[in-house]
Amino acid sequence: MISDRLFTIREEGDSLLILDQTQLPHLYTTRHLNALADAVHAIRVMQVRGAPLIGVTAAYGVALALKEGASNKALDNAVQTLAATRPTAVNLLWALARMEAVLRPLPVAQRRAAAWEAARAIAQEDVAANKRIGEHGLALLQKAAAGKNEAVRVMTHCNAGWLATAGWGTALAPVYAAHAAGLPVHVWVSETRPRNQGLLTAWELRVAGVPHTVFADNAAGLLMQRGEVDLVIVGADRIAANGDVANKIGTCLKALAAREHGVPFYVAAPQSTIDFACADGLRIPIEERAADELRHVAGIGHGGHPASVTLLPAETPAANPAFDVTPASLITGIITERGVCAPNQLQATSEERT
Amino acid sequence: MISDRLFTIREEGDSLLILDQTQLPHLYTTRHLNALADAVHAIRVMQVRGAPLIGVTAAYGVALALKEGASNKALDNAVQTLAATRPTAVNLLWALARMEAVLRPLPVAQRRAAAWEAARAIAQEDVAANKRIGEHGLALLQKAAAGKNEAVRVMTHCNAGWLATAGWGTALAPVYAAHAAGLPVHVWVSETRPRNQGLLTAWELRVAGVPHTVFADNAAGLLMQRGEVDLVIVGADRIAANGDVANKIGTCLKALAAREHGVPFYVAAPQSTIDFACADGLRIPIEERAADELRHVAGIGHGGHPASVTLLPAETPAANPAFDVTPASLITGIITERGVCAPNQLQATSEERT
Repeated sequence: MISDRLFTIREEGDSLLILDQTQLPHLYTTRHLNALADAVHAIRVMQVRGAPLIGVTAAYGVALALKEGASNKALDNAVQTLAATRPTAVNLLWALARMEAVLRPLPVAQRRAAAWEAARAIAQEDVAANKRIGEHGLALLQKAAAGKNEAVRVMTHCNAGWLATAGWGTALAPVYAAHAAGLPVHVWVSETRPRNQGLLTAWELRVAGVPHTVFADNAAGLLMQRGEVDLVIVGADRIAANGDVANKIGTCLKALAAREHGVPFYVAAPQSTIDFACADGLRIPIEERAADELRHVAGIGHGGHPASVTLLPAETPAANPAFDVTPASLITGIITERGVCAPNQLQATSEERT
Repeated sequence: MISDRLFTIREEGDSLLILDQTQLPHLYTTRHLNALADAVHAIRVMQVRGAPLIGVTAAYGVALALKEGASNKALDNAVQTLAATRPTAVNLLWALARMEAVLRPLPVAQRRAAAWEAARAIAQEDVAANKRIGEHGLALLQKAAAGKNEAVRVMTHCNAGWLATAGWGTALAPVYAAHAAGLPVHVWVSETRPRNQGLLTAWELRVAGVPHTVFADNAAGLLMQRGEVDLVIVGADRIAANGDVANKIGTCLKALAAREHGVPFYVAAPQSTIDFACADGLRIPIEERAADELRHVAGIGHGGHPASVTLLPAETPAANPAFDVTPASLITGIITERGVCAPNQLQATSEERT
């Protein structure tokens, strides 16, 4: 929780209150999640989204599930149902594995309270990790600012701000840290078709008072070619052991343009996004979402109320892969709560600190 | 004109009838252009669009202007006003220079009839050039099809079909030639934010019965990484003497992905798109269009009528460059009416045939 109104998920008694991100930035709507099915639905339709927040919501989803009984069967069912909601973000599986590791050994009677406690710990650790990511990333921005008389210009993709996490964000954490430290920063915000999560980023930055400009995803190459971008920072949905990164569709195009034009390309994510069991990016499952996401666009209609328009007739086929894989070779560095490392140094960085 | 309903521009007495592409694919609307101001407006707001069609419309715009009098002053005014409509497509300047070269030496009394004749010749030559582009491109598709049991998969960007020309199209001409020759072809159609000209391409292909799939611009890299694209063919708004190509924003990202994944990348355009006076792509002026194009999206509303929704509040800054430059080094070949040549062989190809 960042303020009373600016939070992604919070406990309310034995239920959860979430900010419904399918309505943002056009409507500010909160929803109660009371049972497992509510958490499953919220993740699947992207009322909550962003790899870290999906993990936190899944952990709390287990707690919701155990309200009705905490048998092994109930625990199995909760974990399996939540694990099947979305395939790419590994934080989901990581959070569920951690919940299982805590809860399975406990007597059934103790599991319910322990589930809330374990989910809360995951949320709090996410906030703390993201704050550290902000500090490590700030050093990069300060370096980029050295000798400049104007703002550091950061390009990001999709939304990896506080909306995608339990707090602070991943890719935007360094931006918020810079803004707080008085370092002038300007953010290039990609629209991020087809779900337009760039509008979430623009909303976050407007609320925070950080200067920014929205652009169509197609313009990323030209902006870098013109020298208008100092560095790119994106989030991640899963980082393979070799440093390949699955992130929102369109990320790899920005990484290719960054290499072409000599712009440093960073990925910011907590350690929970690293899947050491996954050798390389080609093994990361890529979610294919409904073609309807390309067919319809939601916004504000003529009367000032939320509305949507249809772009494509039902008979026009559309493909909608939701993520792509950026090879480690295109990535300058990965920013985690432990610091900044080269993509091929993830294992070493992880081992030396554990 | 392709059929009675499928045309982009045609003469009607001493005025022009155009298909209003700002309403497509949601509404089929034609408009009369009666005077210079109508032609200027049609080009500026993109009722007509696509480099070859802009050239043809500008040529006819001179004819409209001379209806009221064909003095040198009237000719100067027509040429200067039309030249200022849009900066990037060189076909505009090429067509105006050709109109001037024909009309300036003539007695004033002969200019009016000569203007219509000269504009008609430009339109007819565009159709003929595009038909030849289709034939040369067909050979590339046949080569790509050799030994395959499935359709040749072509990715395109924006709309470079018959809607962008006086007939046949440029990038889509080879696709139509293949379809007519019975060669199975499937087209990957990029949405092309922010103006969504991919919807025009999807509409054209649906009308023609050519299999196709629409995708968000962000997915271009993943589709190529997965091996789902055999070749890319795009149009061009201006080709510099060294083979650098200005085309719809987002083209260079697709070219970078094509090189990364070993996918041949072709540019199809008539010779009138080549600007030998422009040494390289960095000298091509890039049009910056209104941020409103990113702010609002047009489609079909709830009641089945054309409607639009607002994505971005007025206070959110947005950048909207309309074109980018793809360096010659990323281009496999340029398909013109004279054949297929390497981007650094444009001058030689042009000279040996003239």
